[in-house]
Amino acid sequence: MNSKPTAQDIEKAHDLVSAYINYTPVYTSESINKIAGAEIYFKCENFQKVGAFKARGGMNAILSLSDEDRQKGVATHSSGNHAQAVALAAKVEGIPAHIVMPSNSAKVKMDAVRGYGANLIECEPTLQAREDTLQEVVEKTGATMIHPYNDYYIIAGQATAAKELIEGVNDPLDYILTPVGGGGLLSGTSLSAHYWSPETKVIGCEPEGADDAYRSFNAKTLIPMVNPNTIADGLRTSVGEKPFQIILEHVSDILLTNDEEITAAMKMVWERMKIIIEPSAAVPLAVVLRNKEKFEGKKVGIIISGGNVDLGALPF
Amino acid sequence: MNSKPTAQDIEKAHDLVSAYINYTPVYTSESINKIAGAEIYFKCENFQKVGAFKARGGMNAILSLSDEDRQKGVATHSSGNHAQAVALAAKVEGIPAHIVMPSNSAKVKMDAVRGYGANLIECEPTLQAREDTLQEVVEKTGATMIHPYNDYYIIAGQATAAKELIEGVNDPLDYILTPVGGGGLLSGTSLSAHYWSPETKVIGCEPEGADDAYRSFNAKTLIPMVNPNTIADGLRTSVGEKPFQIILEHVSDILLTNDEEITAAMKMVWERMKIIIEPSAAVPLAVVLRNKEKFEGKKVGIIISGGNVDLGALPF
Repeated sequence: MNSKPTAQDIEKAHDLVSAYINYTPVYTSESINKIAGAEIYFKCENFQKVGAFKARGGMNAILSLSDEDRQKGVATHSSGNHAQAVALAAKVEGIPAHIVMPSNSAKVKMDAVRGYGANLIECEPTLQAREDTLQEVVEKTGATMIHPYNDYYIIAGQATAAKELIEGVNDPLDYILTPVGGGGLLSGTSLSAHYWSPETKVIGCEPEGADDAYRSFNAKTLIPMVNPNTIADGLRTSVGEKPFQIILEHVSDILLTNDEEITAAMKMVWERMKIIIEPSAAVPLAVVLRNKEKFEGKKVGIIISGGNVDLGALPF
Repeated sequence: MNSKPTAQDIEKAHDLVSAYINYTPVYTSESINKIAGAEIYFKCENFQKVGAFKARGGMNAILSLSDEDRQKGVATHSSGNHAQAVALAAKVEGIPAHIVMPSNSAKVKMDAVRGYGANLIECEPTLQAREDTLQEVVEKTGATMIHPYNDYYIIAGQATAAKELIEGVNDPLDYILTPVGGGGLLSGTSLSAHYWSPETKVIGCEPEGADDAYRSFNAKTLIPMVNPNTIADGLRTSVGEKPFQIILEHVSDILLTNDEEITAAMKMVWERMKIIIEPSAAVPLAVVLRNKEKFEGKKVGIIISGGNVDLGALPF
């Protein structure tokens, strides 16, 4: 795919991945609606395979490889959910996966990657070491590098979550909100809304301590993040070029929140909805609660991006 | 109702409460099935109104009152989920509820009871003080006392959870497991299995530190619990006479587990299923994992009794 995914690309992605991923439920909470003064529909990707929406993109990228590329396997570097997504997709396809992970990655995530039968290569916890190690692996094995977000197949895969959300709600949503880290989920969501619910505005939600999407969106040019500092560990990356161009075209706004608000929103969902969501997944609800007047009386879709948290290190 | 609920009584209860409660989902987890070596169906009453199955019984008991009794209101004493269930049911019916709660009850639960508009009466945290205070309230107001489990309407209401579970699974279950505290859920479940899935064995699951149901069941006579000591706060009560007679007739066994196993099972569900369950709700899974050979290859239904936990005091 050499340009932004079309409606047909996203439909094809959905057909490809459907057999391997969960069609996740859309949940509502009367008490949160009451607090927010809005009608919120939570698309629960915390119940997705590997505990995050990343399974969609990883699956689509690997199922879309040519037979020749497939045989040589896939490779990526990631400390988190994307590592598991690629490992799972490679296992399903029965092809080799080489996953470079920084040595300080959560043990539970490393175990999960190994559990899928992937070849896990530990490296120093720096971006340079991650990229160098991945480069070596790719040269040695001929494996295809699967980028976590700067890839149109990944974007088309992530777009399927919003497609399902739109299908699962009766009347059109006024807004769909997603967190924004590398931009794969936000850009894919904005495409699905554009194709299947054009009256719905898509808003990216970002922590103040990792506000590169906010600054880039307003400057209309990519400004990478330096020294991100936020509890939302999935959102510390900088937006990629391919998702950014889609975001500029199809996203209506990027709104900010802070760690205190993110923690409160996360706790609210745990207590009121009895579901486990990770800090990054709480960012959109935190944005709704910070901007009550904007969302008052509106139908708001929120993509709960994932549920992978270290229960031994909770912020409350 | 002067004797154990019939199939018609439970059907009637289900018709009465359905408009006011959630038809909760049945979840499965591939990874937990793999660990357990069994096929487990979790009926998620943590997603029930008030966060626990108790909403079913409370709703049925109050909807079943005569018009005259209804006007005088209802009363109960409880430190936990039953208090909220009665308060919610009374609110729905627009009748007064007087809820006696020990002064050391969780603030979040007291706030919830007040939030439903109930008259909350605090008392010393002893059983004697609770019963005396309740007695006073009943004498003064003429309210009907709603017992949390020693009541056939409550039992018929709790039975509707297993009825839904049985309806929601294609082939008959080999077992249904529930926690046992006062016995309302276990006795109701055993009746639903008896009426609608007679090939299914029902097993009560109890912590070693509150094993009165286990000892009573084996002695065939009620032996109340003295000084219960378990993390499963919902199961510290002793089994009541009415549920006990049903349990003796329709339950095939009571199995024990301990706090370490309960905590591990609770953490497993949080991590693998991304849902929040309270310690009492983890007791059946802990029993399955302790008795792997017994449940190997079997279809096992588990009623996840509730999801009300104090996030500030987690056991892990």
